[in-house]
Amino acid sequence: MPVTPDATARATSLADAAIAGDRLALARLLTAIENRTPVAEAAMRRLYATAGSAHLVGITGPPGSGKSTLVARLIAEVRRAGRPVAVIAVDPSSPITGGALLGDRVRMQAYADDPDVFIRSMASRGHAGGLAATSTAAAAVLDAAGFGLIMIETVGTGQSEVEVAAAADTTVVLEAPEMGDEVQAIKAGLLEVADLVVVNKGDRPGAHRTAAQLRAMLVAAAPRPNPRPATGDHGDATSPERPRPKRPEVLITTATTGEGVPELLAALDRHRAAGTAGPPPAARLARAEAQVWSIVAERLRDRLHDGAHTGATDAVLADVADHRLDPYAAADRLLGVLGDEPG
Amino acid sequence: MPVTPDATARATSLADAAIAGDRLALARLLTAIENRTPVAEAAMRRLYATAGSAHLVGITGPPGSGKSTLVARLIAEVRRAGRPVAVIAVDPSSPITGGALLGDRVRMQAYADDPDVFIRSMASRGHAGGLAATSTAAAAVLDAAGFGLIMIETVGTGQSEVEVAAAADTTVVLEAPEMGDEVQAIKAGLLEVADLVVVNKGDRPGAHRTAAQLRAMLVAAAPRPNPRPATGDHGDATSPERPRPKRPEVLITTATTGEGVPELLAALDRHRAAGTAGPPPAARLARAEAQVWSIVAERLRDRLHDGAHTGATDAVLADVADHRLDPYAAADRLLGVLGDEPG
Repeated sequence: MPVTPDATARATSLADAAIAGDRLALARLLTAIENRTPVAEAAMRRLYATAGSAHLVGITGPPGSGKSTLVARLIAEVRRAGRPVAVIAVDPSSPITGGALLGDRVRMQAYADDPDVFIRSMASRGHAGGLAATSTAAAAVLDAAGFGLIMIETVGTGQSEVEVAAAADTTVVLEAPEMGDEVQAIKAGLLEVADLVVVNKGDRPGAHRTAAQLRAMLVAAAPRPNPRPATGDHGDATSPERPRPKRPEVLITTATTGEGVPELLAALDRHRAAGTAGPPPAARLARAEAQVWSIVAERLRDRLHDGAHTGATDAVLADVADHRLDPYAAADRLLGVLGDEPG
Repeated sequence: MPVTPDATARATSLADAAIAGDRLALARLLTAIENRTPVAEAAMRRLYATAGSAHLVGITGPPGSGKSTLVARLIAEVRRAGRPVAVIAVDPSSPITGGALLGDRVRMQAYADDPDVFIRSMASRGHAGGLAATSTAAAAVLDAAGFGLIMIETVGTGQSEVEVAAAADTTVVLEAPEMGDEVQAIKAGLLEVADLVVVNKGDRPGAHRTAAQLRAMLVAAAPRPNPRPATGDHGDATSPERPRPKRPEVLITTATTGEGVPELLAALDRHRAAGTAGPPPAARLARAEAQVWSIVAERLRDRLHDGAHTGATDAVLADVADHRLDPYAAADRLLGVLGDEPG
């Protein structure tokens, strides 16, 4: 969608208000980001340079590992240190309708009067391949608004959802002790994106054994050489197969009591400190690429579906649907259409 | 990747062999599709016109609803009718490493000597926004090879995974009775993509009550008007928000005993028959678009990262990562780069 002067004016005032600490403006901007409105574009253009200093922490893990409770404890711990904190919860319970979780609303309530806590549910609907881009853009807005620590909570079962957490500066993978064989398989996949592994529900009998098993698995998994973020080869913007500088630490927490949570926050801060020197780390580059590519793709799609080209595009797609034209030949035709009107 | 004469020759012979019933050739083609090699492209160009008559059935539902067992029963039922059947299981257990599930291998074993059954696990790794495209391409290969019924099994918790099932001609959403509050929420989202709702584990006490609840929910959810597949507006190729011609039927099965499975197959066939008249249904168009768009995106990315442009692209992305350039301005620059060398 084109950015009109009206949208720009509205976005400028919303962005400036959000940066100045206006929570309603911040909430409105996040809604615009989620709906990809012209206001979102104009606002991002306005505030992006102000962002860039926050620490993005992705928190993922299988259902039942206690993510939400741990995030609530982390918020309390960060607030004890007087630091502002924001949470983006990518709602896993409803891929289509995307309603906020009840528990989330309850957590929200507890910090309703604290200007230094901002909790936001984000639906994952309708954002195929763009979920990482949308959450990154939302994080940039919170970053510009002064939230120095931003947690992005996702469930570790869907591919897009794992990618969102993997695109953070620091990715925490949660496990619960003794979750059976099926979860062991999930574990193997999730471990590859972990900077920190947390065995939660540490008061259960198997916690220390699970932690020991995880440490053994991590020793066995030799880090793979991979000098730059894997992009372009599979059409994915934020491949989680980015290089990990060192073997992830394994920590034990009990979110229900808060045990181990101060140590987890300290580990997050250490990981952050280790990653701030030198050129932009792979995760930051992958994030940038996901964001930029999502915008490029949206612009090109708009071009194929708007105005002069929409008839030709629809005809090509109908031919593919009816198997009169193969998808590669169709892609060549659409690239031809795009090529006719560059820029 | 460009299609070399070598790849074309190899693809042609693989495609022809697969169409003629060579299972090894079929398996190799599916691997090529999954890895998006030049062989895949050449093979698709060769066999796409032969495909187009199969019935694609998506089967999704929350973990623990008994999808795999039901699919195994459906295979047996379809075989009893003498019809060939293929299954694509999009592996939910490992978004990153993507290993085949043990249960899947066991199922495979049971039909190892049956030339009219083909079961294939597909990893979901590295295919952000392209999972639907890859499974659609795999289905086209199986379709051309003569499998008239192709089931695509995915777990109903990840956004990409639900989209894969939603892009089928007929989408079956599984529920198990009395799965608690959290699953009720999942239900609300999943129901929107359902053509058929199946309450599995029908021998449990709550099954009939759950079925009644689901019917009530479906009556309450009025169908939304949506004349064409929603594409282009959120960058998603296969929005599950396609129009549903009628309220989904609710069936009860007990996959462990096979109870209700013949009725389910009959319902699948009825839904198929109802959708074959008239212009290509929305699901087919959305599938075509996901496939074509995935190829367009891959080509454009290759162009940005290969040869002359890669330095400029990397510099733009580094500037975004360091917040010296906002992602919209970066997208404009990359579109300029693409515009310089169209076609």
